[in-house]
Amino acid sequence: MALARGISRRDFLMRVGQAGGYGAAFTTMQSLGLLPMKGVLAEPIHAAPGVGKGTKVVVLGAGIGGLVSAYELRKLGYDVTVLEARERPGGRNWTGRKGTKVEFTDGTVQEIKWEEGNYQNLGPARLPSTHWTMLGYARELNVPMEVEINTTRSSLLQNDKANGGVPVVQRKAVNDTRGHVSELLAKCINQGALDAEITKEDRERMVAFLGVYGPLDKSGKYAGSERAGYKVYPGAGDQEPVNETPMDMHVLLDENFWNGLLYEEANDWQATMMQPVGGMDRIPFAFAKSLGDIVEYSSPVTEIRKTSKGVAISYTQGGTAKKLEAAYCISTLPFSILKKTPNDLSPEMKSVIDGSKMGHSLKVAWESRRFWEQDYNIYGGLSFVAQGPSPVWYPSGRLMHPTGIVVAGYMDESQVAGFSDMTMEQKFAASRATIEKLHPGHGKELTNPIYCGWRMVKWNEGSWIQTYGGGKQGYEKVIQADGPIYFAGDTASHIVGWQEGAALSARRAVDMISDKVKAARLAGYDGALPA
Amino acid sequence: MALARGISRRDFLMRVGQAGGYGAAFTTMQSLGLLPMKGVLAEPIHAAPGVGKGTKVVVLGAGIGGLVSAYELRKLGYDVTVLEARERPGGRNWTGRKGTKVEFTDGTVQEIKWEEGNYQNLGPARLPSTHWTMLGYARELNVPMEVEINTTRSSLLQNDKANGGVPVVQRKAVNDTRGHVSELLAKCINQGALDAEITKEDRERMVAFLGVYGPLDKSGKYAGSERAGYKVYPGAGDQEPVNETPMDMHVLLDENFWNGLLYEEANDWQATMMQPVGGMDRIPFAFAKSLGDIVEYSSPVTEIRKTSKGVAISYTQGGTAKKLEAAYCISTLPFSILKKTPNDLSPEMKSVIDGSKMGHSLKVAWESRRFWEQDYNIYGGLSFVAQGPSPVWYPSGRLMHPTGIVVAGYMDESQVAGFSDMTMEQKFAASRATIEKLHPGHGKELTNPIYCGWRMVKWNEGSWIQTYGGGKQGYEKVIQADGPIYFAGDTASHIVGWQEGAALSARRAVDMISDKVKAARLAGYDGALPA
Repeated sequence: MALARGISRRDFLMRVGQAGGYGAAFTTMQSLGLLPMKGVLAEPIHAAPGVGKGTKVVVLGAGIGGLVSAYELRKLGYDVTVLEARERPGGRNWTGRKGTKVEFTDGTVQEIKWEEGNYQNLGPARLPSTHWTMLGYARELNVPMEVEINTTRSSLLQNDKANGGVPVVQRKAVNDTRGHVSELLAKCINQGALDAEITKEDRERMVAFLGVYGPLDKSGKYAGSERAGYKVYPGAGDQEPVNETPMDMHVLLDENFWNGLLYEEANDWQATMMQPVGGMDRIPFAFAKSLGDIVEYSSPVTEIRKTSKGVAISYTQGGTAKKLEAAYCISTLPFSILKKTPNDLSPEMKSVIDGSKMGHSLKVAWESRRFWEQDYNIYGGLSFVAQGPSPVWYPSGRLMHPTGIVVAGYMDESQVAGFSDMTMEQKFAASRATIEKLHPGHGKELTNPIYCGWRMVKWNEGSWIQTYGGGKQGYEKVIQADGPIYFAGDTASHIVGWQEGAALSARRAVDMISDKVKAARLAGYDGALPA
Repeated sequence: MALARGISRRDFLMRVGQAGGYGAAFTTMQSLGLLPMKGVLAEPIHAAPGVGKGTKVVVLGAGIGGLVSAYELRKLGYDVTVLEARERPGGRNWTGRKGTKVEFTDGTVQEIKWEEGNYQNLGPARLPSTHWTMLGYARELNVPMEVEINTTRSSLLQNDKANGGVPVVQRKAVNDTRGHVSELLAKCINQGALDAEITKEDRERMVAFLGVYGPLDKSGKYAGSERAGYKVYPGAGDQEPVNETPMDMHVLLDENFWNGLLYEEANDWQATMMQPVGGMDRIPFAFAKSLGDIVEYSSPVTEIRKTSKGVAISYTQGGTAKKLEAAYCISTLPFSILKKTPNDLSPEMKSVIDGSKMGHSLKVAWESRRFWEQDYNIYGGLSFVAQGPSPVWYPSGRLMHPTGIVVAGYMDESQVAGFSDMTMEQKFAASRATIEKLHPGHGKELTNPIYCGWRMVKWNEGSWIQTYGGGKQGYEKVIQADGPIYFAGDTASHIVGWQEGAALSARRAVDMISDKVKAARLAGYDGALPA
């Protein structure tokens, strides 16, 4: 859906409305500045209030996709039940703190022993300011928010094969790089390289601009800048500042040194990012509090069947087999779990689900004195190493508290060769080695490690969808209903791995069901079309 | 004090130790990675514990310079009194909230009527993570800190003479600029412009690098990027993302468009920045609480005299004339006030002070619904306009609260032509117009304006030092003692306008006095040398 030049704004909006369906036209109008952005409170969805009265919907899973589904269905008057295998809401939105047990499918159990008040978000840990659906819910549910520091100029980049393995501070890498690039371009322009391409006036402006952008000295050289840091900081009395000596461009070009250089510019990693005060799970717990006994915990689903009136879901609860009938079902189960659950999905849908593959993202987290704050002036943000578990993610919460939880390794298992086959102790050693590379002498300060490898986490068995069976066509099936069964969760969105995707897909499923209910009513049925 | 290539590290440290005096060698060793950075707690100063026993010091002014002086003097055993003209500590570190009165020298009084909990720091409002002296005190005094959002990709740049006056979001300006620069340099290199300058291998690496840095497409063009924002955000179902169309390089080069583009890279504006929760004045109030009745409020100084035993300071308190004698004095009075206070300073020092000029920085702040958060996804950070009061500074505290205090205009009076001569109502109208340029239709949401023009604030009559009488030589006099009288405050540092400068200069003055006291003791006197 590329925007061709020359089509009118109205034309464009009409096309988007046709092609994008649910919400696309609205979002587009916002981005063209015709409407303010959302984010005050979560926008009501387009279905008419009360449309759900008398219709039963069962939601499978109480992660963000399931909770948003239930929350919006209830607003529209539906009779809703959420079945959740765990004894808590949130799914992957899971905050580890003192007493939390990380249970793996192989029977391993780690229990967190951190100081009261220290925590780590084992799943999602940041909300971009552009994820206004999630922020809208946070507002609506009165979840206190604070800044999640994703960008800081004091964090580090390290590569065994560059700069002698010595870490480079971001302010230096970022600003020396721009300085060198500016110098080279100014030199080219002054040598006449672009005389044929751009006007004399633009060339002059460009050179003037590069002088500020670099910044460059009078002779057009990048000779360092206070932006890149000081050797001697300005101080009292006669302590005048001395700038750092610029790094050689060779070092910056060496061995993909720029990997950690631009992460802050990825659209969904750009400042300002936010987090709930005290842990990301404050959001699902706020939803759960609002939903009350609509959510049934410790209730794993055992069968998903289609009936003449909709669906019949079998599950267990406290060891007792139970069954629940409903007109519609929204499934938010991870495909890794869904493929093992007996069901009546169409053969085509089964093939998509069976052929899907999950990512194996993981986090290793440690408790420690905040040496990164106290000794390095690093407050939040991420440092990167090129070899071994990466990045290191410093806490944004409880700034200046004596201790904190630091992540050393947040990546897919496949990204560090051999990681999957390591013992737990070896994984911890590899993670500690990353800290030691960035902060020599501080590896030994790390205590109480926790390894959360989502591949092995019970009820998930994977972090997020990596490939759909049947590829793009598989995805196109997932976003359609399979009879009375709808799919929600980040899996059913183009924002995989983000809560925003889960929330938007849930709202979309609720709208799709409401359209069906309305159509059924118009046809004289009681909210569900006959099979 | 430039660092020449080729001198050894030890040599360099020795030279810095000689040249930089107080603390410079230590700071340099930190920046060379030989010592960890400070910041745990404020470092003890080098004077011996107990050195001050039996010696009286009077400190003039209870701003950060005065408070730090008194705090450190007391630690060393001195008998200290601080005389403060106002009924509160902090000086320019001043937080406006409900009930605060902004009194001007012309008799104008504005009383703040904001909602309980809303506030604005009328003076300093951010602490860089590299200002470890101030952060050390915040730790030591248990002042809770939070992030001050100085950088956000959702804030705006606006110029009446560019882009038809339509504001451009930072993510677009920043990323389109880098994209265009990268494309031009890649083109030059591919055309052979740098063949004579850099090796073939480096040229290839550079082009590969620019492909990531831009980012550039396969053909070497910058064709936009998700970094610069979306026309259509990725969503649920079939809502695929559509990137924004890149801005033309002409627009980016037009009329200093880049003014607001790089402020985030200035060393002392780089992320992470911090602020005390609830207002910057939590820091002076924490010092004041610790100092107790060492600080005497409502005690303006009327005369500063040298005596045979040190100094005699006259002041009033509750209308009564009082006098206080001491061996030493640390003056933190703004030169604008000092030059009007009868004193026994040397003619040379008087000439420096009389010849000094203060800056006239100001802030205009408004209470409003947080339309910037709710309608624009702007959480903290700064937007810039090229004409009129600028920048707009959005609050970092109380994120997602319904209302907040927004600054529209934080600059020197001289930066906006005619501003000084405007009536208060005209100033508010100009400030509101800035909001209207950036956020059309929202100017009318602004209420309860406050104008804090430091030129007219009683007991300051200026924001910070702009020029010293006698220039650089004048500064060199200020950082020396004038007999028993020492100067502290950001005026006596290379970090003018920052609390860190005030704190460091105070610590330096305390060390200088302690050296004198030690020398006097060795010479057989009781802590003060005879006149």
